Amino acid sequence: MIICGVDPGLTRCGVGVIEAKDSRKLCYVHVSVVRSDPEQSQDLRLLHIYNGLVQHLDEYSPDVVSIERVFAQANRNTVLGTAQAAGMAMLAAAQRGIPVALHTPTEVKLAVTGNGKAEKIQVERMVAKILRLNCLPKPADAADALAQAICHALRPSGALQGGEREQHLTRAQRQWALAQQKSQLQGSVQRGM
Amino acid sequence: MIICGVDPGLTRCGVGVIEAKDSRKLCYVHVSVVRSDPEQSQDLRLLHIYNGLVQHLDEYSPDVVSIERVFAQANRNTVLGTAQAAGMAMLAAAQRGIPVALHTPTEVKLAVTGNGKAEKIQVERMVAKILRLNCLPKPADAADALAQAICHALRPSGALQGGEREQHLTRAQRQWALAQQKSQLQGSVQRGM
Repeated sequence: MIICGVDPGLTRCGVGVIEAKDSRKLCYVHVSVVRSDPEQSQDLRLLHIYNGLVQHLDEYSPDVVSIERVFAQANRNTVLGTAQAAGMAMLAAAQRGIPVALHTPTEVKLAVTGNGKAEKIQVERMVAKILRLNCLPKPADAADALAQAICHALRPSGALQGGEREQHLTRAQRQWALAQQKSQLQGSVQRGM
Repeated sequence: MIICGVDPGLTRCGVGVIEAKDSRKLCYVHVSVVRSDPEQSQDLRLLHIYNGLVQHLDEYSPDVVSIERVFAQANRNTVLGTAQAAGMAMLAAAQRGIPVALHTPTEVKLAVTGNGKAEKIQVERMVAKILRLNCLPKPADAADALAQAICHALRPSGALQGGEREQHLTRAQRQWALAQQKSQLQGSVQRGM
């Protein structure tokens, strides 16, 4: 299973591709950052990001695209551009019939490091370790995109679980499952109010 | 000059097309609302909105697409979907080489009614009057999309100004120009801080 992780951004949009082979073996395939010129108008910047994402999807034909879930509470100056870049990734995937998964930064940190509040450097180190890279993935957007893809692969209901059962989950996966259940519960409660 | 106004939204995206003929004569061409099913996943909803917008751009070949400028301060629950729908309109226009203009709701109200804080019903009435419609444009998203297009046509530096000079501006246009200057001045001051 090929997983494409996207760390959305209008100026820099990280794209990380991994392959989830048998059991828990995750292999690095590709990482890059699609950039747009802040001097250009917003429509042309979005077109540039969209074209860059399309190029990656067509080249690597992922089975799923995992994108960072954007929240309105995030940095006001950049949140709309980030949401729009995420929208470009969603559109490009939907046009190709590729399923889209959304994972929050906390979910990603939890899945990759076992700590939902991990520092960037911890995430980078774990990404390098999981994918057996010789050096830390740079820049940060690239590492975050790979972390998105890894998060999707390691999620408890993910592709790698196959015939495995919950008792075989890693510590990070168990914490992730618990956090997800808690989050769903909170969601239900809020919706019920 | 054909102007396509877009009132972006993930559930309902208004599309209004007008023709700006000689002098200040604005003619109604088309109005509709592209809807997406809230039960569907976000990627499929965005694809639906995008396809609907593309269909309109290809059918009416506008010279410019005027889209409501979205602010992060707006309703938190819907602002990201609205920004993404606006992104779909920008992408669809950029892919066709159609210039994009962004106008805030205040600019639109000011241009159409002469009052930046006008009520919805006032905007609807003025849209109907300017375009010589027999009834008020419904639903609200449709009226807002037409108002966006009208705002672009009536803006002081707009297509309709041609050889005309500022002394020939309507009251609404003068107020719009003043508000724009004031807004630009505030922007400069803020940037300079």
